[in-house]
Amino acid sequence: MSQNRRHRQATSAEERVLRSIRRALNPKAPKPAARGIRLAIGDDAAVFKPRPGYETVLTCDWFLQGTHFLLDRHPPDAVGWKCLARAASDLAAMGAEPRCFLLSLALPTSRTGAWLKEFLNGLRAASQELNCPAAGGDTTRRDDVLINITVVGECRRGRAILRSAARPHDAIFASGRLGEAEYGLRLLRAARGYLNSGDPLLRKHLYPEPRLALGAWLGRQRLATAMMDLSDGLSTDLPRLCQASGVGARIEEPQLPVITAPATQEKHVNAVALALHGGDDYELLFTVAPKNVAKIPQRFAGTAITRIGEITSALRTVLINKKGQAKVLPQRGWDPFRENRK
Amino acid sequence: MSQNRRHRQATSAEERVLRSIRRALNPKAPKPAARGIRLAIGDDAAVFKPRPGYETVLTCDWFLQGTHFLLDRHPPDAVGWKCLARAASDLAAMGAEPRCFLLSLALPTSRTGAWLKEFLNGLRAASQELNCPAAGGDTTRRDDVLINITVVGECRRGRAILRSAARPHDAIFASGRLGEAEYGLRLLRAARGYLNSGDPLLRKHLYPEPRLALGAWLGRQRLATAMMDLSDGLSTDLPRLCQASGVGARIEEPQLPVITAPATQEKHVNAVALALHGGDDYELLFTVAPKNVAKIPQRFAGTAITRIGEITSALRTVLINKKGQAKVLPQRGWDPFRENRK
Repeated sequence: MSQNRRHRQATSAEERVLRSIRRALNPKAPKPAARGIRLAIGDDAAVFKPRPGYETVLTCDWFLQGTHFLLDRHPPDAVGWKCLARAASDLAAMGAEPRCFLLSLALPTSRTGAWLKEFLNGLRAASQELNCPAAGGDTTRRDDVLINITVVGECRRGRAILRSAARPHDAIFASGRLGEAEYGLRLLRAARGYLNSGDPLLRKHLYPEPRLALGAWLGRQRLATAMMDLSDGLSTDLPRLCQASGVGARIEEPQLPVITAPATQEKHVNAVALALHGGDDYELLFTVAPKNVAKIPQRFAGTAITRIGEITSALRTVLINKKGQAKVLPQRGWDPFRENRK
Repeated sequence: MSQNRRHRQATSAEERVLRSIRRALNPKAPKPAARGIRLAIGDDAAVFKPRPGYETVLTCDWFLQGTHFLLDRHPPDAVGWKCLARAASDLAAMGAEPRCFLLSLALPTSRTGAWLKEFLNGLRAASQELNCPAAGGDTTRRDDVLINITVVGECRRGRAILRSAARPHDAIFASGRLGEAEYGLRLLRAARGYLNSGDPLLRKHLYPEPRLALGAWLGRQRLATAMMDLSDGLSTDLPRLCQASGVGARIEEPQLPVITAPATQEKHVNAVALALHGGDDYELLFTVAPKNVAKIPQRFAGTAITRIGEITSALRTVLINKKGQAKVLPQRGWDPFRENRK
């Protein structure tokens, strides 16, 4: 062994994984410095310079193998894209814009090669698309792939749109079509191995696009009284908004923006049930005071915006069907602690 | 069923877990509002008001059952304390002070009762001790207990102490005694069931105290040229600091602050090896320019501060033993991706 080689101490396996992550996420535009990040991946912590007049908005999100994605079904680049996109959706729901993210990643040694590379490709694509560079993170080894994403964003002081300010008679709006992601998941489950066709419903499940522009616009214009993103399904998420605001809601079934052909032509697909209970859509659910309803466009940046109901004072969520009959809407969205779901 | 009961919709199991967390972490001092947190647990994201003249410092940390703690050995309140304390240690290592944290928690339904309560007791104790209230988080169900903590802190603009500014001839200092936590882990592994004796070495393993006051003081006084916390062991962490700074180091074995009696009287305990390779101490490792060495006290807030060596230009880490013999220090600290460790 040469003197020279003896001097070079062994690089640890952990350092090699970190180097892959740094190489994939550090160099490209947007330049971290330009985004207020003084110090990206590689120190004990990240340093972020807040803009004067803005507040910092923080969110974190689990994305776990077996719980939130299937290692043998979801292409690794979709796992990378989606883990950041869905966390950023929480910022869209506040009317905030993302500034940077932290990646906590645990994975088996067998996934530190090709899988990690493709995962990082998808994550980098989302990072660039959402203008949200990596600022740091933590990695460790684990038999399962475990991901946790923290996204840091900003909004003008006092302009964050909360869940808690919906008032009776406010109109309820939803962006996009509801149930598409759940239908995409069914396509994926029915297939063998990775499925990465161009089907738009599958795309919505694999590569969701958080409604950041719409959320920020509603915040700037002060048009939404309350807002949240639809991650667990309308029937589970809407009662959360109502509870935070101390109100109830009435949803008009015929107005729901359900998925359309060819899916609905299949007999076994109940498009209304998908729209009510399907998770993972990452659309925005927001309420608008009666005087501002006319200011909400039918489309925003290519995405449909649909009025689906009205806030009430009755402390319950009611669904009005085609015949005008009312029934209390059961919460059948995603609940990880409900024993009958796995 | 009464009309009244029909109106009250079922609270989901997830909501019940969230309510336990909110109740445990939300109400007590320090008041979130007083700490610049406008909106704590309960919305899509947390809103944090940065102080003018300060930068935001961000870190996240895994704490996983089987990898970082043992469910049948570590008391739940120690798991709660330690997950926050070790994440806050990354801020101490930057000279920053913590402001708030986000808790990502995944756990089996069987742990949502007594275990969760005790876990939250420990977490709340650390939150109060470190003056770092909860601002938000994410929960889900999982067979293993998985924890990820994001801590948000602040330091005066441009004052964060990085790993990358150590220069040849800087003195190397460490706080506390090294190897204590590793020895505490051995005590714990050797015991059956939970072990919660008053043994200070066990306490150091179970309830580590991040050196926040020391870190902030070194930052304010501009005395440290580079700093990091010792989480994976000196032999693994020091080369990281050296690599970031483009330097090497010489460590004097006789100067190492090793663990003392009664542990060292046991023949099977190699106190030097523990100090070099033991993880989880959460002490600070920092470098000081020659002109400032005399300004470093021997103790700070009750914690010993020891000069253990010197930065060199040789791009390697060398250990000088009692006889004055030099050898390259092997990296034998914690590396989760090394296959021979589990």
